Amino acid sequence: MSVAESGEFGLIARITARLGAQPSTILGPGDDAAIVAVPDGRVVASTDVLVEGRHFRRDWSSALDVGHRAAAANLADIAAMGAVPNALLVAFCGPPDLDVRWAEELTDGLAAEAERAGAAVVGGDISASPVLTVAVTALGDLRGREPVLRSGARAGDTVALAGRIGYAAAGYTVLSRGFRTPKALVEAYRRPAVPYSAGPAAAELGATSMIDVSDGLLADAGHVASASRVVLDIDRDAFAIPEQMRDAAAALGVDPYSWILTGGDDHALLATFPPGVEPPELFQIIGSVSEGSGVTVDGKPYGDGPLGWEHFR
Amino acid sequence: MSVAESGEFGLIARITARLGAQPSTILGPGDDAAIVAVPDGRVVASTDVLVEGRHFRRDWSSALDVGHRAAAANLADIAAMGAVPNALLVAFCGPPDLDVRWAEELTDGLAAEAERAGAAVVGGDISASPVLTVAVTALGDLRGREPVLRSGARAGDTVALAGRIGYAAAGYTVLSRGFRTPKALVEAYRRPAVPYSAGPAAAELGATSMIDVSDGLLADAGHVASASRVVLDIDRDAFAIPEQMRDAAAALGVDPYSWILTGGDDHALLATFPPGVEPPELFQIIGSVSEGSGVTVDGKPYGDGPLGWEHFR
Repeated sequence: MSVAESGEFGLIARITARLGAQPSTILGPGDDAAIVAVPDGRVVASTDVLVEGRHFRRDWSSALDVGHRAAAANLADIAAMGAVPNALLVAFCGPPDLDVRWAEELTDGLAAEAERAGAAVVGGDISASPVLTVAVTALGDLRGREPVLRSGARAGDTVALAGRIGYAAAGYTVLSRGFRTPKALVEAYRRPAVPYSAGPAAAELGATSMIDVSDGLLADAGHVASASRVVLDIDRDAFAIPEQMRDAAAALGVDPYSWILTGGDDHALLATFPPGVEPPELFQIIGSVSEGSGVTVDGKPYGDGPLGWEHFR
Repeated sequence: MSVAESGEFGLIARITARLGAQPSTILGPGDDAAIVAVPDGRVVASTDVLVEGRHFRRDWSSALDVGHRAAAANLADIAAMGAVPNALLVAFCGPPDLDVRWAEELTDGLAAEAERAGAAVVGGDISASPVLTVAVTALGDLRGREPVLRSGARAGDTVALAGRIGYAAAGYTVLSRGFRTPKALVEAYRRPAVPYSAGPAAAELGATSMIDVSDGLLADAGHVASASRVVLDIDRDAFAIPEQMRDAAAALGVDPYSWILTGGDDHALLATFPPGVEPPELFQIIGSVSEGSGVTVDGKPYGDGPLGWEHFR
């Protein structure tokens, strides 16, 4: 059955039947708006949009994968503020002939990824459109802590990273060359494994800055450097290249460090910590902060190419 | 200059430079997420998406108009819960050859309508897409009051309406027949005039149910009737047909009551009040609630056609 045959209200009923709730969900879908508990009195909110052909391809990713990725991209932004995600709202646009199962599986992916982060899908909107588009807004609670901004890194801080890096970019390269393996890389492109708990844990330990790595490690380190008016120097040897990534890089004639340093979409969390502070579990030290401006790798500027991804290229 | 020439970060800089803030804006655009004060500890959140060719046409509405309408559709949902809107997040997708001025004027419309409601645009995302798409999420605060749901109408309540009704549908018919006047109707289609303050005022006076009229008066009254398990009876004579609407209806061969009873997009607020309660300013009594199920006009079922708008037709 197509979404057009299902009808707007039929599709909404099918979608909402698949959603769960969290203790923070005061009112879920079905009224004019949802209501979510944010006991802190400050709500953290972020929006990201995924467009077919630009952010995903239906022949590369299942609806379930797209749901996981759309949710993860937003939930990671909440975690990167040091906040705890609690809700998602989803605007979904699709062609009238789309199979309702695609919309249902997208919903399952969104709901499952939200649950991983402790959140629930609490509302949304659907519309017909020639282009499959998924716009997600994530909400979260600071639990009494101050937010961790991009602007707080100071000379002398250490730079640390939580989560996989380079995997999604490697998987993208593999798929774009027409291959479907190594599976670990392709799966990483399809579904990020965001270390949600590392965000609040970093905030708790006094992280001075934090960012969700979505544009690429050096590009996002650059956003922190620029907002904090410092240099972030990345130590290339901090990254051991996993065997599957090394093999794929050799087979495809790619420098694996280009995946690690400039690939986006893994949604790792990059944070800086004051001198003497041991970063929390899941974080690994990958560099240091010093006076100046910009990003360096082993003390030198990196390559001549772009540092990451621009969405209007 | 096109948005592609401007580049993602260039366009974001141009857009954010045009945005204001509200006292509730703790952190605006520029970091991983925005932070908004919701002193109540419960955030009210709603998402609506507008797609070119489906919800707007660039030859019928300016970018400024589309911004006003996209913001109003969402802010009205917050007001219909009895809450006070405070923030918008916007996901904007447009073709790479779109003139940056269109995106800037859209932003101005969103920001101006948000300001009318006491809110600010605090964040968002942009992407290239073949189809112009604007997905907006609105946030609001309940200020210590209980939310007004669709499910609280009781037999004996009065039904009241705040805001214009039928104007947007009349303007849409005028435009779709190739005319550009009467201007009052066309302008009403382009920019709803939402009575935002009427929502919290109704909540304050003990409204038993409330809904934003976006699908059409009878369709949305039907949502309240169904959630509350009652009949909402609408008194046709409660509506005086404005002279311009009467003239346009006669010229176009349309029953003006079809605009009033089934037209959407004015974003009026429909509420029910307990017996003996005088509805607040801006509301006008248009019917009554009784035992049973469904919606009637002057005690009888209305016509055979659809009661409103379905988005996957």
